[in-house]
Amino acid sequence: MTRLDGRVERGNRTRRLVLNRTVDIASVEGLEALSVGRLATELRLSKSGVFALFGSKEELQLATVREAARIFTERVIRPAEKEAAGVGRVWRLCELWLEYSRGRVFPGGCFFYEVIAEFDARSGSVHDAVVRAQRDWTALVERTIAGACDAGELRADTDVPQLAFELVALMETANVVSVLQDEESAYLRARVGVTARLRSAAVDPERVPQVPRLP
Amino acid sequence: MTRLDGRVERGNRTRRLVLNRTVDIASVEGLEALSVGRLATELRLSKSGVFALFGSKEELQLATVREAARIFTERVIRPAEKEAAGVGRVWRLCELWLEYSRGRVFPGGCFFYEVIAEFDARSGSVHDAVVRAQRDWTALVERTIAGACDAGELRADTDVPQLAFELVALMETANVVSVLQDEESAYLRARVGVTARLRSAAVDPERVPQVPRLP
Repeated sequence: MTRLDGRVERGNRTRRLVLNRTVDIASVEGLEALSVGRLATELRLSKSGVFALFGSKEELQLATVREAARIFTERVIRPAEKEAAGVGRVWRLCELWLEYSRGRVFPGGCFFYEVIAEFDARSGSVHDAVVRAQRDWTALVERTIAGACDAGELRADTDVPQLAFELVALMETANVVSVLQDEESAYLRARVGVTARLRSAAVDPERVPQVPRLP
Repeated sequence: MTRLDGRVERGNRTRRLVLNRTVDIASVEGLEALSVGRLATELRLSKSGVFALFGSKEELQLATVREAARIFTERVIRPAEKEAAGVGRVWRLCELWLEYSRGRVFPGGCFFYEVIAEFDARSGSVHDAVVRAQRDWTALVERTIAGACDAGELRADTDVPQLAFELVALMETANVVSVLQDEESAYLRARVGVTARLRSAAVDPERVPQVPRLP
């Protein structure tokens, strides 16, 4: 390994170390809580080293949003693609999402919920990245539902954006209630809702698993 | 009017002036963005005068949450109570909530959405006030639904907390999507969802108004 390779490799390692921490901080405190100084102190790195890798606070925030999107893709989107297109894939996507929130992949719950609330009414490149991430997610849910319609498993007259909106609403709200009130029951309510929506849109409701009700 | 009355009255006026501004700031930037110094500058008041009225940043945050709750009660809860208990009152409550968000009673959309995201993973008296506000709202939606069951307008076997969870999910998500993406369609989707949920729980679905669908 040349000296340059070694330096690049060290840089990549530091980058991963920093982003590993920034996604956690941002999911609890928001992206504004990120600062080069704080990260250098917490991770025992030199401030100039962290600065050299990210250049500015905004770059650090943008890299953090990209890293969170990468983790989300790995934990939710990719595993769902293993299911054949159909109502089972829609169901699995929702289950994986709820598990991603419930299992606290990010300690503050859904990363995007936190940063959307923070940047919704602002403008600039971080706001735009957050909007894009949310649009991408909604579009993916819609495509997955449309795929289930094409596969003949959801009724052809299904209002795809409406169903996507309702599924996303159930998932996000489970996250909010659970993080705020530390209540597990919200996830079960979301699953009951998801199941009801999918059953009522399914050509064969029996293909949608039944969720136990709360006592 | 005695001198003391005059001073109390001036204090109350200043208090209203300050809170009028803090609920707006917090709905966009969060409660951490509130500071006595900033408010004094923006409102051309003396810093010591603002400080004398609120004592601490935490007191200012708590007073802001109370003021937002007061405005929310006045705009959403009270007008809904004018409807007779029944499915019409549940429907009206949801409509008023969506109008409260859509009409930007607070410039950042729903005040509570913003501050919940900010304080969900923290602890302390502001967190507790925010949790209480959210619990109170959910409990009110549940009581309104239960009232419609008692009135014989929603089916007696309605799962009240489940329906409340689903209605709140639709409303909150309309707010999030609209604030982030500046899209009106989210409110119509929420209304379509609310109508579908209420129709499927109603003894007589015809009592629930039909919402026009998106093209």
